[in-house]
Amino acid sequence: MIISMRPHATKQEVDYVCERIGEFGYKVHSIVGEERVVIGVVGVGDVTQCLESLEATPGVEKAMRISAPYKFVSKEFRQDRTRIRVGRAEIGGDSFITMAGPCSVESEKQIMETAEAVAEAGATILRGGAFKPRTSPYDFQGMEGAGLKLLAKAREATGLAIVTEVMSDSDVDLVAEYADILQIGARNMQNFALLKKLGRCGRPVMLKRGLSATIKELLMSAEYVVAHGNSDVMLCERGIRTFETATRNTCDISAVPVLNELTHLPVILDPSHAVGKRSLVPPIARAAVAVGADGMIVEVHPCPEKAVSDGAQSLTIEGFRKMMHELEGYIALWKESRQEELVLA
Amino acid sequence: MIISMRPHATKQEVDYVCERIGEFGYKVHSIVGEERVVIGVVGVGDVTQCLESLEATPGVEKAMRISAPYKFVSKEFRQDRTRIRVGRAEIGGDSFITMAGPCSVESEKQIMETAEAVAEAGATILRGGAFKPRTSPYDFQGMEGAGLKLLAKAREATGLAIVTEVMSDSDVDLVAEYADILQIGARNMQNFALLKKLGRCGRPVMLKRGLSATIKELLMSAEYVVAHGNSDVMLCERGIRTFETATRNTCDISAVPVLNELTHLPVILDPSHAVGKRSLVPPIARAAVAVGADGMIVEVHPCPEKAVSDGAQSLTIEGFRKMMHELEGYIALWKESRQEELVLA
Amino acid sequence: MIISMRPHATKQEVDYVCERIGEFGYKVHSIVGEERVVIGVVGVGDVTQCLESLEATPGVEKAMRISAPYKFVSKEFRQDRTRIRVGRAEIGGDSFITMAGPCSVESEKQIMETAEAVAEAGATILRGGAFKPRTSPYDFQGMEGAGLKLLAKAREATGLAIVTEVMSDSDVDLVAEYADILQIGARNMQNFALLKKLGRCGRPVMLKRGLSATIKELLMSAEYVVAHGNSDVMLCERGIRTFETATRNTCDISAVPVLNELTHLPVILDPSHAVGKRSLVPPIARAAVAVGADGMIVEVHPCPEKAVSDGAQSLTIEGFRKMMHELEGYIALWKESRQEELVLA
Amino acid sequence: MIISMRPHATKQEVDYVCERIGEFGYKVHSIVGEERVVIGVVGVGDVTQCLESLEATPGVEKAMRISAPYKFVSKEFRQDRTRIRVGRAEIGGDSFITMAGPCSVESEKQIMETAEAVAEAGATILRGGAFKPRTSPYDFQGMEGAGLKLLAKAREATGLAIVTEVMSDSDVDLVAEYADILQIGARNMQNFALLKKLGRCGRPVMLKRGLSATIKELLMSAEYVVAHGNSDVMLCERGIRTFETATRNTCDISAVPVLNELTHLPVILDPSHAVGKRSLVPPIARAAVAVGADGMIVEVHPCPEKAVSDGAQSLTIEGFRKMMHELEGYIALWKESRQEELVLA
Repeated sequence: MIISMRPHATKQEVDYVCERIGEFGYKVHSIVGEERVVIGVVGVGDVTQCLESLEATPGVEKAMRISAPYKFVSKEFRQDRTRIRVGRAEIGGDSFITMAGPCSVESEKQIMETAEAVAEAGATILRGGAFKPRTSPYDFQGMEGAGLKLLAKAREATGLAIVTEVMSDSDVDLVAEYADILQIGARNMQNFALLKKLGRCGRPVMLKRGLSATIKELLMSAEYVVAHGNSDVMLCERGIRTFETATRNTCDISAVPVLNELTHLPVILDPSHAVGKRSLVPPIARAAVAVGADGMIVEVHPCPEKAVSDGAQSLTIEGFRKMMHELEGYIALWKESRQEELVLA
Repeated sequence: MIISMRPHATKQEVDYVCERIGEFGYKVHSIVGEERVVIGVVGVGDVTQCLESLEATPGVEKAMRISAPYKFVSKEFRQDRTRIRVGRAEIGGDSFITMAGPCSVESEKQIMETAEAVAEAGATILRGGAFKPRTSPYDFQGMEGAGLKLLAKAREATGLAIVTEVMSDSDVDLVAEYADILQIGARNMQNFALLKKLGRCGRPVMLKRGLSATIKELLMSAEYVVAHGNSDVMLCERGIRTFETATRNTCDISAVPVLNELTHLPVILDPSHAVGKRSLVPPIARAAVAVGADGMIVEVHPCPEKAVSDGAQSLTIEGFRKMMHELEGYIALWKESRQEELVLA
Repeated sequence: MIISMRPHATKQEVDYVCERIGEFGYKVHSIVGEERVVIGVVGVGDVTQCLESLEATPGVEKAMRISAPYKFVSKEFRQDRTRIRVGRAEIGGDSFITMAGPCSVESEKQIMETAEAVAEAGATILRGGAFKPRTSPYDFQGMEGAGLKLLAKAREATGLAIVTEVMSDSDVDLVAEYADILQIGARNMQNFALLKKLGRCGRPVMLKRGLSATIKELLMSAEYVVAHGNSDVMLCERGIRTFETATRNTCDISAVPVLNELTHLPVILDPSHAVGKRSLVPPIARAAVAVGADGMIVEVHPCPEKAVSDGAQSLTIEGFRKMMHELEGYIALWKESRQEELVLA
Repeated sequence: MIISMRPHATKQEVDYVCERIGEFGYKVHSIVGEERVVIGVVGVGDVTQCLESLEATPGVEKAMRISAPYKFVSKEFRQDRTRIRVGRAEIGGDSFITMAGPCSVESEKQIMETAEAVAEAGATILRGGAFKPRTSPYDFQGMEGAGLKLLAKAREATGLAIVTEVMSDSDVDLVAEYADILQIGARNMQNFALLKKLGRCGRPVMLKRGLSATIKELLMSAEYVVAHGNSDVMLCERGIRTFETATRNTCDISAVPVLNELTHLPVILDPSHAVGKRSLVPPIARAAVAVGADGMIVEVHPCPEKAVSDGAQSLTIEGFRKMMHELEGYIALWKESRQEELVLA
């Protein structure tokens, strides 16, 4: 920790801060500066508690931590990538993973048709919402249990693994019964009751970044799940909220390499929610591969204009096929660089 | 609804859109423009569904709703202010309401001492967290049930009503047993499972605005609670996340008059979380009164530097007293303008 | 300065950083931490240069400055408020200052009528744009020289001082001939050629905060003007750009007390641009007084619906009068607290 | 235009709005809705003026334009891509363009060495700042005229074309004498005096997006240059300002395909400023190629740790070479899709 005192803080204030540091079990390593005093602190203890306390102490301007606030998810804790196997897919491994499917499960016909089509085009994981977080209470809220059953049926028919959202700790057990990956939506990234429950759900978790969550906060939420017992966590960049309205969200493409530097967890990109518009999905999918994501999750619907939700950003089946074909060259380059990485390690 | 077609959309595309509008039970009222066609739609039905569907239809550029997406919380639904009575306070009524207390309930001594002091200085509602949403899994997570009991004890001793946070639908019943107002934190503003449960909790609800939630989304979340059966909802502006880092958040002071134009629900301002720094709380509290909020919620701690959370933004008891004294003139002006409003109505 | 090394930086890397610190004329004061090394640096020199250089050096994670990057505008440089006298107004002094007038100067009739009305209602400074920064090249660009002459005429008739915008260093001399205060618009806050020229313009300057400028950057731009020879600078908060679209911008009300802690320069609030909507101007004006701004700048037009620009946010003359009347109580409280401040100092 | 009235606007208010529409030379095409009236407007005239005026008119809630506010830069004005030839590079054509070089021109040795190295590695345009926009008045402000001369010398030696920044309309003539492309920095994107001057500078212009400028505002600024006589404009995405601090800015990668849908002007991506950190530049450069940008501009310095500015984000010469080599496969795919585009057109 580094404690920066206000300019002209009194000697008494500095002394009191040093005393408090001692009370927290830390050691004052050194005191720098004349006009403006800065205190270096070393040792091991409850950093957050100590920082918050010092920030509230007279004469202190800022108390900063130097070390990262997360442990298990950090690259320092584990050097090689976490690989998560679900069905025939391995996320974080040697293949770029495609998850595809409709925003909402709507009917057996819809989900079966989509599942077969996306499997054929190269996806290995089927997405589809049974519990839907909707801004308005008057909008379609999902097929819930019935939707989960349809997803399971689609898995049986196609061999695709299933990723689907869970919105409350009360539903975790139910969803875990059917899904291969439990998805946490952007609005629930800091639903800590839910995160804790996921630590004991026995399934891999895909954690979507909150609309205005920093990368550090995303990692802290992943740390919740891991610290509560579940280390199979993948992260998902799905666009953040900014002032720009030309796209639904702003795709923070740099989050992928930033996360690759900070964590060993796999990173998935969601071009559909990032841009919110069908025609922009393929270029962002190309960028996702090029930037080094471990996979992507894309919305596909047999008839987007009749979708109950997110139609505008859903690819048609034909559009998805075309995109997957177009991505082949990029995915070949992706594989090359993964292999080089392994050789170098 | 207004449907704006892409420039040079074909006649066929326009015809198909009109056909779809009919299928949703709406009526095409008129078609404007030559080079760029705009379609006016009238009638009553599932607007969201229709908008989403049309946005996904070939040739359509944008589908916009004209009416507000919320009903019960709108000023059009109810002209006069909603008044919510808890203990000796009436929120939305003729008095500016002060809620005050520590971030977290830490011990009996701490909460009793604070409760007595804030009551004496003019607060009528005691705040204090028993369930704490913390970014890190390693931080203090609250006293939970034991904390609720201490709050109840403080209520008994002082007559203050209690506002405290609930973080999961699983905890609503427990918290409702002790609290007078259930607070929904910023990170849970779109925890829809929780919002639905609050509709049947039998207690007033204070809904805090999410870090990056628009005012419209805040109203939609309030609509969830009201539509599920509970019309005693108050809204709380607590700062939004922006690029500015000089303050913890950016206090969107204009949200107060904007909400006063759109809704009949009371609006509370939280200067402590908005700014994150003790010395900035009093000027923002003055602004809260001047701008016409119905009340404020402020963090106060007998010894902020020893607080387990939010010490830097907590007022000391002495600081709170001083601020309340300073606010008297502003609150007198506030009352005058409320009385004028009643006379005019 | 504090230099934080990457975890596991080599001893060689640390040594090299220390060597570089020496080359910049600084002294390594102490080295903290084992696993992650942090270096404390003292001395006087070109901080920015040194920081940038170190951030580019292998093994370094972050190089942070502790001292503020501005000097002349800081509270440490000067304790008491800067007072700027123009006409019969003193900004930063014992009176809350009101600047009012139309967005654009449109005609003699319009500016004279407005000037007389706002003077009568209590304004002491007249605003009015002769050079207009417009997003579109097809919009009205201002009356330029002719507009300046009309402003001078209005000054003569009413005794109001004049504040008007200058958009290019090439126009500074011309505008300075007519205006009492040169206004720098939000889009030009970091037009450094212009800022340098203002250092030698011989007139007070009102510097508006950029749409996405931090408070620190605003102070750095003020520092440009002062460092180039002109210490009569006032700052203006006019709303920042965020994701919220219910208002034109988001009024960062906390910027006022933050600036009051950091600088001795006067701070003006612009409710009109902050909110963009007439009905929201009066509550924000009340908040401006309550929060402790030195004054406000408000748009007023005799017939807003016929204004060539910003009609939606302009008050009518009647509306302005009503607002000024309503503010009286708040301004009385403002004066009281300024007097207390002087007594305490 | 679409004019949406407030709920329960009176018939008189609607009639007056219709009258005003007529005064602006427009025609009311139709009036939709009962409870909430919406007016469709057709015709040709001064849209902005009419919109602003109507928004200020009693009873009006919102006045929206349907058509884009720009003309010359729109895809509707010109279908095929604008191609701009400078030196041996054609921007917007059949090759992905690389502009590379130091942030600032510092010395003859530095610029010559960099120029030769980047030319050899595949760049065709040399970047280098002679006039430097710096947040602090105490930072290095550029070599100005002397820097321009060194750039010209580097061009002579290597055949690279030169792109360099101009910060004021007063300097346009001087810079245009030496540069092949005049760069407008993010902070000057809405320096309208400068934009107007660029319309008559006789050189291609590269317009960088402002830190908080929307895509629409970027296009409007380009429209300024084109409308004032210069159609050789390229746009540059260089990251926008958001709440995320893990990167210097947030690279809005979607801006590239969004711009490709809206305009015929070439789009360049600046990975260096977008991320602000050397190690993140190569993945973002790959994304730039994959997403379909026309080129990129990258900072390269022979010794980044001794650079006078932006060292942390500058690639070393060796790092640049490696990146260019790695990009070859991606650029081959880029060329394929450009050729397909031509075949399809």
